[in-house]
Amino acid sequence: MLNFDILIKNANILTMNSQMNTFENGFIGIEKDKIVYLGIEKPEATSKTIIDAKNNIVMPGLINAHTHSGMTMFRGVADDLSLMNWLNNYIWPLEDKFVTEKNIKTASKLAIAEMILSGTTTFNDMYFFTGVTAENCKDIGMRAVLGEAVIDFPASVKKTSEEYFLEFINEYENDNLIIPSIVPHSPYSCSEGLLKRIKKLSDEKNLPVHIHISETTDEVKLIKEKTGMTPVEYLDSINFLNEKTVAVHCVHLTDNDMNILKNRNVGIVNSPESNLKLASGIAEVPKMIKKGLTVSLGTDGPASNNNLDMFEEMSLTVKIHKALNDDSTIMNAKEVLRMGTINGAKVIGIDNITGSLEIGKKADLIIIDINKPHLTPMYDPYSHLTYSANGSDVDTVIINGKIILKNRKFTNFDLDKVMLDIKHISNEIIAYKNNGMK
Amino acid sequence: MLNFDILIKNANILTMNSQMNTFENGFIGIEKDKIVYLGIEKPEATSKTIIDAKNNIVMPGLINAHTHSGMTMFRGVADDLSLMNWLNNYIWPLEDKFVTEKNIKTASKLAIAEMILSGTTTFNDMYFFTGVTAENCKDIGMRAVLGEAVIDFPASVKKTSEEYFLEFINEYENDNLIIPSIVPHSPYSCSEGLLKRIKKLSDEKNLPVHIHISETTDEVKLIKEKTGMTPVEYLDSINFLNEKTVAVHCVHLTDNDMNILKNRNVGIVNSPESNLKLASGIAEVPKMIKKGLTVSLGTDGPASNNNLDMFEEMSLTVKIHKALNDDSTIMNAKEVLRMGTINGAKVIGIDNITGSLEIGKKADLIIIDINKPHLTPMYDPYSHLTYSANGSDVDTVIINGKIILKNRKFTNFDLDKVMLDIKHISNEIIAYKNNGMK
Repeated sequence: MLNFDILIKNANILTMNSQMNTFENGFIGIEKDKIVYLGIEKPEATSKTIIDAKNNIVMPGLINAHTHSGMTMFRGVADDLSLMNWLNNYIWPLEDKFVTEKNIKTASKLAIAEMILSGTTTFNDMYFFTGVTAENCKDIGMRAVLGEAVIDFPASVKKTSEEYFLEFINEYENDNLIIPSIVPHSPYSCSEGLLKRIKKLSDEKNLPVHIHISETTDEVKLIKEKTGMTPVEYLDSINFLNEKTVAVHCVHLTDNDMNILKNRNVGIVNSPESNLKLASGIAEVPKMIKKGLTVSLGTDGPASNNNLDMFEEMSLTVKIHKALNDDSTIMNAKEVLRMGTINGAKVIGIDNITGSLEIGKKADLIIIDINKPHLTPMYDPYSHLTYSANGSDVDTVIINGKIILKNRKFTNFDLDKVMLDIKHISNEIIAYKNNGMK
Repeated sequence: MLNFDILIKNANILTMNSQMNTFENGFIGIEKDKIVYLGIEKPEATSKTIIDAKNNIVMPGLINAHTHSGMTMFRGVADDLSLMNWLNNYIWPLEDKFVTEKNIKTASKLAIAEMILSGTTTFNDMYFFTGVTAENCKDIGMRAVLGEAVIDFPASVKKTSEEYFLEFINEYENDNLIIPSIVPHSPYSCSEGLLKRIKKLSDEKNLPVHIHISETTDEVKLIKEKTGMTPVEYLDSINFLNEKTVAVHCVHLTDNDMNILKNRNVGIVNSPESNLKLASGIAEVPKMIKKGLTVSLGTDGPASNNNLDMFEEMSLTVKIHKALNDDSTIMNAKEVLRMGTINGAKVIGIDNITGSLEIGKKADLIIIDINKPHLTPMYDPYSHLTYSANGSDVDTVIINGKIILKNRKFTNFDLDKVMLDIKHISNEIIAYKNNGMK
């Protein structure tokens, strides 16, 4: 007789494993942080906790492969502006004043709550004061790849010291939830020397490198003027790219860029909602997939999206490329759900522990409540998840074997408190804006 | 001392009137079916029912200006196929077999429930057995423009008789919720004679005419081969177009088409999610707006979207044109919220009674629960509604002065029953599919 910590029964299980196995009316057994049973046969087991999934969909938690969690405090503070107006006159001055360790503690906590409520169980973050974001993840029980954004190009952003950055990497080297990463902001905001030091550190410590690449045409132009090469060609020329690189956006790639990224085994993250909203452009995702690149999805930060709902990214991705390619068979529901789960895990280098439901992997999973008009009737769960669901349909979230959210209520986290705390920060931001950003 | 039926207090009111007036901490008084008070001053009034909006957003209900409500039964039954494969091998045979009066009664009821749950208070429908859809609207308390789809081009769809169609128009001529319309499917599926008879009937009875125009390149090609004109030019050549015409999709318009539609005061409905998913293309919405056309939004049917959430249409519309035009200032949150509310009312010809919150208009309004992480902090309600909210954030819905939904619960409608009934239909559809559609 086995003894589980959690047994999920009556589940419509989408494993998202390489065979895309599914189990209707299935069972999942969890012991400590791991999946130990998966199948349609009722296991011979007792369990401390039993969850009746009531024929709801159980699937791997979503992987938000690129965000800036601390930016929740700037959600909706400025929209519909030109990129340079938005950055120069709003985002950068606001970051300069309000990106403090205390504020990030609150803002990233709100982001984590929002991500869990919309089914994300791992996020890959690029922001500042990573230490407090890591503390929040540990307190709430969220999995994350975290690194301190590094810039040496003059920009009005807060920076922590190099010691802070190295200390963080050492502190979380063998953590069960946090994976440290190195986060050079972009090839145009980091000098060649800095990029080379980062690559060396990544090689030494085997750390993922999370970087924006070719988000806008202006950026491509800038690098071309400076180096005569595209951003991808330039990074390759300094031996920066390898399987540890997490290349974010990739909106403006040449065929040669794609070939280089493929040859170097670089993982791609696209953030289509942000790319539309900031008028950055539309990445050629189907072409990248055809070339064999692993493409995943991220929400980008809440100032440029403006939410952290991965369901919206999946839905937009599968639809927009059909119209742009004049072909409704390009991309499909299963493929885009892989982008939002296992591909995200692959790109950030943790597909050995998460991204699909498999025996031996960490128990990172979500239960979707299908008992809603917009998810009724049910012919194909992949279709509903892609074309009809949104983050609010997530009922239960388990991360690392712990039930974090049940019936949309946090089991061990004071959501009202963080909502109140963020309002205090936003009141200060409103006063600052009303005073002409002075 | 006034005596209201409903008083809403502590509301963050977005009127969407021509001045875009807003009232923070405002009051709305409702008597019978109408708004009788609106402002920040506390009214001298008693009220049978008082709703504390708790600083939530109160705004006009959304207008879904184009859908096929009866198609909920086919939601997700077939996706990611070429248009002709989807229509010929799935949708048309399924419609042929399952579009019965009994099934439409259930399917349109589910659609109405879904629309109310996502904040729609009026929908403009094109489908079959309109009589039972009207009965559902009356039972539930939903406002709708309803008409029986008319086709004389051979197509595998169920048709009701012309008597049915005329009887329906007579029955609902002066109804307080239902506005009858005439619904020729499209210029390629209706003969010139039929279109002319429809125009005559519209003129005689002052009825809106709801028609698909220029949805796909194939359709444009077909009409051009037949007539040497674009669909819009052709319809204009037979004097079909006027201010009663509701022109749906308009994905492939020439500049001349837009000028004709403008000169004839034709209202436009775009359904961007469906247009992407079916690879129909992307309508030039900013150009239409620049030419002075009134552009509204619709979800299209649940087989090609796959939900009826108008928030998704608004969010997609405002974002996609920024990227396509390489300009993040093109379109904005306020503008797209007007498309989803007052513009919808204008296009379907009922802006005298709904589409904005104004004294004397019908009380068709929704309350959005902003106490959610993804809607926090609050700097700009227009931004949150456009970029961050979804249909699940709708808390309360009032239509024609009646509270239909409160705290996301229907006050007088058995949602579980219709969810069960639709499952019986879907079981039959699954059996039919499994039997090779025989």
